[in-house]
Amino acid sequence: MDIAAFAEKIAQGDRRSLSRAITLVESGRADHRTDAVALLEALTQRPDRPEALRVGLSGTPGVGKSTFIESFGMMLLDKGLRVAVLAVDPSSVRSGGSILGDKTRMDRLSREPMAYIRPSPSQTQLGGVARRSRDAVALCEAAGFDVVIVETVGVGQSETMVAEMTDLFLLLLAPAGGDELQGVKRGIMEIADLILVNKADGELKSPATRTCADYAGALRLLRKRVQDPEGFPKAMTVSAVEETGLGTAWDEMTTLIDWRREAGHFAARRAEQARYWFREDVRNGLLAQLDGEAARAQMKTLGAAVAGGEMTATLAAEEMLATLRK
Amino acid sequence: MDIAAFAEKIAQGDRRSLSRAITLVESGRADHRTDAVALLEALTQRPDRPEALRVGLSGTPGVGKSTFIESFGMMLLDKGLRVAVLAVDPSSVRSGGSILGDKTRMDRLSREPMAYIRPSPSQTQLGGVARRSRDAVALCEAAGFDVVIVETVGVGQSETMVAEMTDLFLLLLAPAGGDELQGVKRGIMEIADLILVNKADGELKSPATRTCADYAGALRLLRKRVQDPEGFPKAMTVSAVEETGLGTAWDEMTTLIDWRREAGHFAARRAEQARYWFREDVRNGLLAQLDGEAARAQMKTLGAAVAGGEMTATLAAEEMLATLRK
Repeated sequence: MDIAAFAEKIAQGDRRSLSRAITLVESGRADHRTDAVALLEALTQRPDRPEALRVGLSGTPGVGKSTFIESFGMMLLDKGLRVAVLAVDPSSVRSGGSILGDKTRMDRLSREPMAYIRPSPSQTQLGGVARRSRDAVALCEAAGFDVVIVETVGVGQSETMVAEMTDLFLLLLAPAGGDELQGVKRGIMEIADLILVNKADGELKSPATRTCADYAGALRLLRKRVQDPEGFPKAMTVSAVEETGLGTAWDEMTTLIDWRREAGHFAARRAEQARYWFREDVRNGLLAQLDGEAARAQMKTLGAAVAGGEMTATLAAEEMLATLRK
Repeated sequence: MDIAAFAEKIAQGDRRSLSRAITLVESGRADHRTDAVALLEALTQRPDRPEALRVGLSGTPGVGKSTFIESFGMMLLDKGLRVAVLAVDPSSVRSGGSILGDKTRMDRLSREPMAYIRPSPSQTQLGGVARRSRDAVALCEAAGFDVVIVETVGVGQSETMVAEMTDLFLLLLAPAGGDELQGVKRGIMEIADLILVNKADGELKSPATRTCADYAGALRLLRKRVQDPEGFPKAMTVSAVEETGLGTAWDEMTTLIDWRREAGHFAARRAEQARYWFREDVRNGLLAQLDGEAARAQMKTLGAAVAGGEMTATLAAEEMLATLRK
């Protein structure tokens, strides 16, 4: 494979090359992997490498993520920005299929030449999901997209992962019925830069306003991140259906990012994220020794012996490690 | 080393042999490790192996953990039970020294022939702390102690670890000033079987009662564990200084444990814990490849290159893994 030519086409924004490249980074085949690493390296080392704003977006099913991304994406296109949307779906690890990222969910956006939507691949392990998503983000960035939205479902671990590969994190919520917070995990509140209460339209407008106030209050209780300007993280209402509040949300996002850029936090965070993924990749690479069929079978056998009291966990682990060292 | 004779002495309850054995499992030396594994195996396989009640205990500094353990331990001795106390102090990983488990903290208990107190060793990594603590619990159990208390400080990860090596988890709290919960992490509330609000004496008696009611309310909001009888997890007040409430606490503990034993949950949980530690040991064993001096140095160099944008995290990880495979 002519890596240099491939990289050049991606850098020129060729969509078919971008799609092929993402398929390449998603592949588990060893030769694909080698090419993928070389390609990413070539793109990363380009002196004219563009920089996108990487935006993480989370929200439980039913809050209107697809509609929000479509409306928000269309607004960004109107501003002359190119938008890529990637879906990270750790649940596909179990189901073996993609529940997110279906292009048909974002009908208008998917037909726009300046937008790119990539469905979530089916994967075999979360570590793999992380690396492949992160590589796909880097590819979209290299292809010159101004905003790369990384969408995920609200299941905890995936948010942390997405937050580690994005510059800004949005949490999309629906108006709550009562005065109760929607069981949003504290950990997710802590990584959100902006909470957007969607469906602030029609009958839900005033519940949305109340929910927004509740979350604004909850955010004030969380310790403020030192690297952020006064008032962040923020909660606001939007309506994806009526396309209201989206411009204000974007303004808040750019305010925050400009501030972080000027203060040097933007670059520092990206450097820290790169270091984090390096360490994670090494750890996952070591643990991948347990993924083989023979290793799994032995883990199962030894696990059963340990659970049955036939041997100590310590001895079983030593046996397993001895086998792996061979 | 004559492992069979060593095991025999421990099984007979010889304290000096027990202390030597714990020192052995705490050692990082390879030959000590081999002996330790053999010793644990020999003890585990004894047909007359006794079973202790393993009790985890957590509480932030200042709640009176030492005083509680002393009073509670003395009460257990009065009931004719033998008591071992082990301290797990993950903070010593960083400080290099033990802040817990000092025998002088439990003056009366440490002089009792039927009690055994083992201070926390200084360790180099949390994985190591877990394995050594777990081995020490197994040794105390093999030595015939009826109750093994594993004490830890309230720092999150260590509670989870201790909960995975004990049958019952106690959370010790101090009366709060206001009506506010004391920043106790939800995760810790979720593993506690019994919350004990200490210092329910003198001026603090009514604040303790109020705090207890607050926590009882908070516990009701958490989902009830299916394997437990009605009313658990519970919150109650105790006074370690005045030695009140301790008998009731013990009664609740035995009620819960008897219930779990009858329902088969006690044995099932121990089996699951053994399987968990087996998997953890294997994982930690694989990750231990990063502990060597050369590996650390290379991780640092590659990490700096990645943070500086000189290479991708992906490529750096591949290089690191290639070196480790050699």
